[in-house]
Amino acid sequence: MARASDESVALASVEDLEDLALRDDYALNPAYVEMVVDAADRSDTKRLRELIDALHPADIADLMGFLSSTYREELIPLLSPDDFAEVLSELEGSIREDILENVDPARLAAALGEMDSDDAADVVDDLEDDKKGAVLAAMSDVDRASIETALAYEDETAGRLMQREVMAAPQFWTVGQTIDHVRAAGDELPELFFDIYVVDPANKPLGAVAVSRLLQAKPDALLSAVMEPVTEIPVDMDQEEVAYIFDKYHLISAPVVEPGGRLVGQITVDDIVGVIQDESEEDMLALAGVSDPGRGASILDITRSRFWWLLINLGTAILASGVIAVYQGSIAKLAALAVLNPIAASMGGNAGTQTLTVAVRALATKELNAANILMTVWREVAVGLLNGVAFFVVIGAITFFWFHDPAMALVAGLAMIINLFAAAVAGILLPLALDKMGFDPAASSVVFLTTVTDCVGYFSFLGLATLIILR
Amino acid sequence: MARASDESVALASVEDLEDLALRDDYALNPAYVEMVVDAADRSDTKRLRELIDALHPADIADLMGFLSSTYREELIPLLSPDDFAEVLSELEGSIREDILENVDPARLAAALGEMDSDDAADVVDDLEDDKKGAVLAAMSDVDRASIETALAYEDETAGRLMQREVMAAPQFWTVGQTIDHVRAAGDELPELFFDIYVVDPANKPLGAVAVSRLLQAKPDALLSAVMEPVTEIPVDMDQEEVAYIFDKYHLISAPVVEPGGRLVGQITVDDIVGVIQDESEEDMLALAGVSDPGRGASILDITRSRFWWLLINLGTAILASGVIAVYQGSIAKLAALAVLNPIAASMGGNAGTQTLTVAVRALATKELNAANILMTVWREVAVGLLNGVAFFVVIGAITFFWFHDPAMALVAGLAMIINLFAAAVAGILLPLALDKMGFDPAASSVVFLTTVTDCVGYFSFLGLATLIILR
Repeated sequence: MARASDESVALASVEDLEDLALRDDYALNPAYVEMVVDAADRSDTKRLRELIDALHPADIADLMGFLSSTYREELIPLLSPDDFAEVLSELEGSIREDILENVDPARLAAALGEMDSDDAADVVDDLEDDKKGAVLAAMSDVDRASIETALAYEDETAGRLMQREVMAAPQFWTVGQTIDHVRAAGDELPELFFDIYVVDPANKPLGAVAVSRLLQAKPDALLSAVMEPVTEIPVDMDQEEVAYIFDKYHLISAPVVEPGGRLVGQITVDDIVGVIQDESEEDMLALAGVSDPGRGASILDITRSRFWWLLINLGTAILASGVIAVYQGSIAKLAALAVLNPIAASMGGNAGTQTLTVAVRALATKELNAANILMTVWREVAVGLLNGVAFFVVIGAITFFWFHDPAMALVAGLAMIINLFAAAVAGILLPLALDKMGFDPAASSVVFLTTVTDCVGYFSFLGLATLIILR
Repeated sequence: MARASDESVALASVEDLEDLALRDDYALNPAYVEMVVDAADRSDTKRLRELIDALHPADIADLMGFLSSTYREELIPLLSPDDFAEVLSELEGSIREDILENVDPARLAAALGEMDSDDAADVVDDLEDDKKGAVLAAMSDVDRASIETALAYEDETAGRLMQREVMAAPQFWTVGQTIDHVRAAGDELPELFFDIYVVDPANKPLGAVAVSRLLQAKPDALLSAVMEPVTEIPVDMDQEEVAYIFDKYHLISAPVVEPGGRLVGQITVDDIVGVIQDESEEDMLALAGVSDPGRGASILDITRSRFWWLLINLGTAILASGVIAVYQGSIAKLAALAVLNPIAASMGGNAGTQTLTVAVRALATKELNAANILMTVWREVAVGLLNGVAFFVVIGAITFFWFHDPAMALVAGLAMIINLFAAAVAGILLPLALDKMGFDPAASSVVFLTTVTDCVGYFSFLGLATLIILR
């Protein structure tokens, strides 16, 4: 999209700005980001306000990610408390922390009062300790209590994810009674809800009625007659488990219960969408040995966080070099060995990563467990052996034409079979073992895997060459 | 969990079976799978029916994934049309295709009639052509027409994802009128809905009212007064874009419109959860050069699908070996070079994968675009250089203590700086370039990356060694 000139933009109405703001794929338009930067450079507050007003809070949060800290500071005061609250809930870690450091406690307290209890607790949790006290003190007693309750649950559990506001009704109410109650009730109901939980006198959930079903049911029917079974979420359940349940049963909302079974809140699917994004992203980044720096992270932070993974990998690379060192004498006699040496190791690394990634994913989606573990291991090993045989032929032929040496071709081919077999065994057993021991199979298995495939690759090729060619 | 003996299980009530069926983490209990297998082996239909009846259709679908084809064939006839429909919607690709091959067209037609139009179209799309005709012929005209309409949209677009059943009301209706309409309406409404779309006389969406808000609004208020803005989804939008919009704006449902703007259906968030899972999984698997075989895939299919990626990687490994071959003479003079040679290449591969993975993820979440591209490239290159300097020191020291040769230490260190720099440049520019050219940056960038890091790694180490040590 061509960048609009300042003149034409100054004439644009709010609708035009809204059209300009997003590209066809609903991502923020880079040209719009530039317009914001230009206005900020000119300290044109009126213009900045127009530009911000044309954006949905989710897009303002997105915009913050594209701006440097000084520009962000200019925008924050222009947001209404409502918008500021929504932007804060949407922002990613490092940028939010940066904004929270500089914001006035009273302004923040007002914004927190506008948020759902789960989002507010998340924000408060990000505050420095001294600031946390000031902000909590500036809040109303009710808001503070609800945030403190939420913070009492551990991070990444159902208790943190849930909102305390729910619509619950006793089992002996009729549909008509319930509708009247909803009409009369005001602020204590959630802003938006999809299910009405039917509870017994001890406040334990018995079932749920979708709001659209409530509308269609006969007014004199009892809730207990129209309700459907619910899946209860224990308050201390890990959010990854919660996401699994929502995905499996296609839930829109679910009641959260205390250990005794009492209803304490609800989780809605829109919170789960974020969790699912985060969890699969985590696995993907963990496999590459990297964490999400966030757009606000400094170069030094990123360098440091990646250094450790690279250092561990250096250790394994040196270990593998130790294997080559054992056969230094063979290489001195026949330098061609050094040329072909990395091939089997590299192929093993790739084949093992294929197996490993499929296993990590199957573990995450619970498609791999005791019921099919033997079958899965056998399948991977068989695939490794079959591809080993296939590449015995391919690399054997290539080596023969390259070096005109049948013994060298045989060695390269055998090393390939051995290493693709080892890669399959390591690729499937490592994540299973790590998972069994309670570790995250995505986080550490690649290091172990490449250690195996490098060492076995070098050892089998150089060892066989020493035995067969140099004997 | 200890496996229950057959006697105790025979006495168990349906509630007990339900408790047995799932583990604490809501995954299917392996012991339960074995109970099903035992009953099937004994051809105990009564027992099988009890075991199946205790399961949610989503869990029956999960169970199918753990069973071999012959056991699955025994279970299918025991399912009610309703359950069969739900199980079919839940099943993964290869297993579903296997079941569809053997099922009676009339039975399948009945099940399809029970499904949402999007799920039914998906199933029909999986049928062999001759079977497709027979099944469609066995369906009612209305059901057939709705499936044919859905199939007219391309796979993985909003049109395929949407359900045609929507609750829409004209802008001039009051809240009370709308509620009365919902009450009176029967089958033409969706089974479950969360938003009522407000449309103009041309059936174009103007806004939406959440059902819970409708309940709370004054009965004589006009819909146009209580509605909120909606985000319209074009019918030909890619499902990945749809998922992005749902995630960004926390949508529960959204109207789908034709090119002219007319409302043709709706997408609900529970369909999106599956899309998000699939899309991030696709990226993760693509980075490892592997596709999801599904639990039903044969060993030969898997071997074949992985073979091609490995073959491409063999090509790049041989290319890199060609670089070593150039320096065969140097290695013949000093075999120690072959020992250290793989280290810089391996580190470059790891560092490049870190950069690449972060970039692929940022592109997928649209956090990386023209507005911050220069900053991001600079950041990655700076991180690469800083870690290059850090590992210059580390590997330099290690090499010095290992080989007692300062020149060798210098060469190993310099090769590390050069390769970590090259890895950063390739790791960030490759996915950006592939994305710009319209390719999936997750699918092919790893091959290019390792080609760069292997070749640059070998070339810099052996080249510098030849210049500095062997001159």
